[in-house]
Amino acid sequence: MSEPYAALLDIARRRRSVRKFEPGRRVSRDQLLRIAEVARWAPSGANVQPWDFVVVEDEDKQSEVVDVFLRQANRLREKAMGFPAVYKSYLKNTVAIFVVLGDPRWRMCFPHGATPEDEAEYDANNDNIYYASLGAAIQNVQLAVTAEGLTSAWLSGGGEAQTNSELAQVLGYPDHLAAIGTIPIGYPAKDHSFRYRRPLEQVVHWNSYQMDQYRTDEQVQFYQDELKPFAMYRSDQDALDWDDVDEKLGVWKAAFTTRVTNPK
Amino acid sequence: MSEPYAALLDIARRRRSVRKFEPGRRVSRDQLLRIAEVARWAPSGANVQPWDFVVVEDEDKQSEVVDVFLRQANRLREKAMGFPAVYKSYLKNTVAIFVVLGDPRWRMCFPHGATPEDEAEYDANNDNIYYASLGAAIQNVQLAVTAEGLTSAWLSGGGEAQTNSELAQVLGYPDHLAAIGTIPIGYPAKDHSFRYRRPLEQVVHWNSYQMDQYRTDEQVQFYQDELKPFAMYRSDQDALDWDDVDEKLGVWKAAFTTRVTNPK
Repeated sequence: MSEPYAALLDIARRRRSVRKFEPGRRVSRDQLLRIAEVARWAPSGANVQPWDFVVVEDEDKQSEVVDVFLRQANRLREKAMGFPAVYKSYLKNTVAIFVVLGDPRWRMCFPHGATPEDEAEYDANNDNIYYASLGAAIQNVQLAVTAEGLTSAWLSGGGEAQTNSELAQVLGYPDHLAAIGTIPIGYPAKDHSFRYRRPLEQVVHWNSYQMDQYRTDEQVQFYQDELKPFAMYRSDQDALDWDDVDEKLGVWKAAFTTRVTNPK
Repeated sequence: MSEPYAALLDIARRRRSVRKFEPGRRVSRDQLLRIAEVARWAPSGANVQPWDFVVVEDEDKQSEVVDVFLRQANRLREKAMGFPAVYKSYLKNTVAIFVVLGDPRWRMCFPHGATPEDEAEYDANNDNIYYASLGAAIQNVQLAVTAEGLTSAWLSGGGEAQTNSELAQVLGYPDHLAAIGTIPIGYPAKDHSFRYRRPLEQVVHWNSYQMDQYRTDEQVQFYQDELKPFAMYRSDQDALDWDDVDEKLGVWKAAFTTRVTNPK
């Protein structure tokens, strides 16, 4: 294992949505700029770099942004039935907030068809190119945060129209831009722990897709109905380490912990 | 600058779409698994990990995948007027191809509104969560490729329906999955060079969005009409290093090379 690879794997594993930050810490502008510097090197379709980073270090302004997300979480509890309740109290002790703004006007530079039929095909894929480019930049932000000894969460609620409109007010951006990712940063209050990850041999298919690794509709539904809060918030990468693995996974145990999801 | 940060920045800067691979090289399954291991640690909405990685190492199968993208490039030249012609001859000497499949069924686990009105708001943001998660995984693939001393390109054309349908045939996956990113990997035939990047001080806004850093519609249009092929394919991160910078950028020189894009 080469040194650069070992460093990268360690950072990628330690990057995760930590929900408790240490109080009383500060971060320097130099550190924040180092994070933006990594973000800036993300790839994007037609190299349009359709992002801006609003870096909120001012404490009053941070409170205003946090208030927007507390209201967003309240709406989620009221309006999005079945989603695990998220109490964003961990946003306290944030030392800075990175807001990654996307600018959809740049989709103009992606492929567009000359006829309506061709345009339909290319237009649908423009969503992929646009959001995946922003996802790459957000991932670079989170990796750089981790490399700086900090930790972060990734809030995607800024992409909802109401939340984006409130953020645009607070931060002064034109609201055709959208807060695709909001990344509160802090010092981790405890050691990093991990989250459930599908086993490596389940996500890798050699040379052709293996249908015995296909996840059936029933498995997706089981995750949605039963497993989601545990897979989102428990601190083990391998569900086999859960004391109550048999109870929580039942007949789906092999499908979430081995290569084969679909033995038929 | 800490060691982990220095390692990450170096990898992030060297990651880029290289279009020429060295012939006669091989890659091991261990190396390919190390790349998938980093990819697997990417974050995703509700931790659904909506990806699979089809790793094509078999040479005949690689040729079939390359053929799909050669046809895609031909269609692009015919049907997507104004997009710079891409001749994907660099796909020769590929040592492996990573196909990142996305599975849109997992959007079920993202927030959904209880009423049609609320659902409209959440549904629009599901695209963000879904594609940005896949973008994070694709970025992890590319960073790990770089850390392994290899290089890669990011082809997004697999997200077009026709191309995806052909890839699904070749690789044997159900075609409601989509090849969100296809990443041919090789050994770089020459030193890494860089691509145009907007200056750090232009992408960073402290505490509030700075309207003098807003890119006007005219600037977006100028990029689309004039600058795009040079910003996509020239080997300087700073356009000021171009011999013909005045000719190519004209009145837009400051807007692409300094903090202020919009002096009004």
